Amino acid sequence: MSADFVKEQSKTFESGIRLDSGRILAPITLVYETYGTLNEQHSNAILVEHAWTGDAHLAGKHDESESKPGWWDAIVGSGRLLDTDRYFIICSNVIGSCYGSTGPTSINPKTGKRYNLSFPVITVRDMVRAQKLLIDALGIGKLLTVMGGSMGGMQALEWATQYPDSIASAIALASTPHPSPQAISLNAVARWAIFNDPTWRKGEYKHNPKDGLALARGIGHITFLSDESMDAKFGRRFSAKDGQFDFFGQFEVERYLNYNGYNFVDRFDANSFLYLAKSLDLYDIAWGYESMAEAFGQVKVPIQFYAFTSDWLYPAYQTEEMATCMKELGKPFEYHLITSAYGHDAFLLEHETFAPLVRRFLESIQRAE
Amino acid sequence: MSADFVKEQSKTFESGIRLDSGRILAPITLVYETYGTLNEQHSNAILVEHAWTGDAHLAGKHDESESKPGWWDAIVGSGRLLDTDRYFIICSNVIGSCYGSTGPTSINPKTGKRYNLSFPVITVRDMVRAQKLLIDALGIGKLLTVMGGSMGGMQALEWATQYPDSIASAIALASTPHPSPQAISLNAVARWAIFNDPTWRKGEYKHNPKDGLALARGIGHITFLSDESMDAKFGRRFSAKDGQFDFFGQFEVERYLNYNGYNFVDRFDANSFLYLAKSLDLYDIAWGYESMAEAFGQVKVPIQFYAFTSDWLYPAYQTEEMATCMKELGKPFEYHLITSAYGHDAFLLEHETFAPLVRRFLESIQRAE
Repeated sequence: MSADFVKEQSKTFESGIRLDSGRILAPITLVYETYGTLNEQHSNAILVEHAWTGDAHLAGKHDESESKPGWWDAIVGSGRLLDTDRYFIICSNVIGSCYGSTGPTSINPKTGKRYNLSFPVITVRDMVRAQKLLIDALGIGKLLTVMGGSMGGMQALEWATQYPDSIASAIALASTPHPSPQAISLNAVARWAIFNDPTWRKGEYKHNPKDGLALARGIGHITFLSDESMDAKFGRRFSAKDGQFDFFGQFEVERYLNYNGYNFVDRFDANSFLYLAKSLDLYDIAWGYESMAEAFGQVKVPIQFYAFTSDWLYPAYQTEEMATCMKELGKPFEYHLITSAYGHDAFLLEHETFAPLVRRFLESIQRAE
Repeated sequence: MSADFVKEQSKTFESGIRLDSGRILAPITLVYETYGTLNEQHSNAILVEHAWTGDAHLAGKHDESESKPGWWDAIVGSGRLLDTDRYFIICSNVIGSCYGSTGPTSINPKTGKRYNLSFPVITVRDMVRAQKLLIDALGIGKLLTVMGGSMGGMQALEWATQYPDSIASAIALASTPHPSPQAISLNAVARWAIFNDPTWRKGEYKHNPKDGLALARGIGHITFLSDESMDAKFGRRFSAKDGQFDFFGQFEVERYLNYNGYNFVDRFDANSFLYLAKSLDLYDIAWGYESMAEAFGQVKVPIQFYAFTSDWLYPAYQTEEMATCMKELGKPFEYHLITSAYGHDAFLLEHETFAPLVRRFLESIQRAE
């Protein structure tokens, strides 16, 4: 981003939405940020979707005091992949999250108290349903693309299947048509860690249940990395502070997970973590259809898929299933398997590799529009 | 096993051993079972090593009331791979465990109380050091083979490197020269789950800290299976009892891990779990040597290695490193990569595949002796 500061914005939709569960969530507030300028034709808008514990602060800084820019600053800004001189870029915090959009930490208007566990179970499709209200409110008839990784990739896929006339393309990185039982299990034990924390009190806590949430994050963190990246970063080194024969002595990787887990407690709400973990596990692109092919049958625009060789959370074969499905349906797509040691996190780190491919794809979409 | 019942035996070694940590563990009691008859030359003895939460009850039943036979009954008995008509088979519970051998649940003779966390940190090499006392006491100068999977495989490797004159061969299945940082991480979060349980009380509990231990087991359980085996067994099916939009609703795989986790609490001690997890993580065949090659340089007998394609806890490449090392040293070995969907647990389940290979290997060893 340029030296200009970016501002968090929000919109509230009083009538809310009907969720996949059949429940009504209303009102819905969405927090979002935008970068660049919407052109006269409203044809240069790009929606970027965040992952599990992400937020609307995609790029730039809110003010001078911020030590780090937004989470995908590397690809957003003047002259960057998502060029703010050309595109109008939107990033919106999902419902269920704790960064301003309506979620379990929000006040339930019916009770005047925090929703906590009275918040409804939501799906990725529900997140996108809410975003559609925002995109409509911004006066954007058609997004040039919707792009995201992991849960962000699932959202891109939902735009492609649920709102095929509202996008000109979609880009899904490190995504899956439905997480495997192994991925579900790893979220299940993370949930369990929070449930075990007596300070969680079935969601009715004043302070985040820190031990449970830190552990849950520690478990999640393992799934974002890879055997190879951990080996490069930590190897089997033992913490220099500890003796190897001390009962509580830690390996460096262990200390790292612990340290980052407890840091996470300061920035993310335990109930939001649980609700979004559930959204991830429930995710199935074929929800409401007979098959994945029927779901992809709705798609009208090109999709660009990226998978990463060392991603064991949503392994490449799952993205390949989607690519194969598009191929069999005779729909336009690109599939890129990127060699990377970074595991699932590669979608955030390998931008130098995929940027030229995304740039070419976006230009072809713009020419076709 | 035949219809004869098997009996648990034990021996106590008053002077104990000096551990890798430098501490003395004394006295040491080892619980063990034997099957078949030791021949006059004492040349038909096979030591089978158990894994993390295993015990000495390798095969057969203790009495009629037992619903299931010992843990590797499929390969031990008259006419089976480890033929009790030919071989004298020994299985000994490791130190650190909670099944009768000296461990954190044992009484510390200095205090008259349970060791709990005053038990010393032990290594896999220490486990084998203790077993050596037992094998000597049984009057066995040379074991025909030492065989085991996972932590049992590590023990077989320690016999091969530490007591090269006391064995005629070794068989290591689903093993590793040293667990990777990813494997360490997964044990680290399992430990953390127990540490988080307020009823654990730094090891000074009266009753097993059930929520923490069940979760720790749940995490471990994931690492024993594979993406593929979970998919075959559970897929993404939701528990029939639960609604998909219930906050506490569970996937079948989630319910399974939960159920088995709580069952585990009835059979295994939390402190033992922690001590043995640490032994696993600390395991390094090259401990005390300049390199893995120097460690394997001690070996004087053939080693048979098995790895399993879907084992992601101790992946095949780690066994291949050991095989390569033996090859470069010009030492006799066999390496078999078994195609299996069962993940790490394959070493217990793929016996029909590896039995003919082990049988041929054992016969070649007997001929050479």
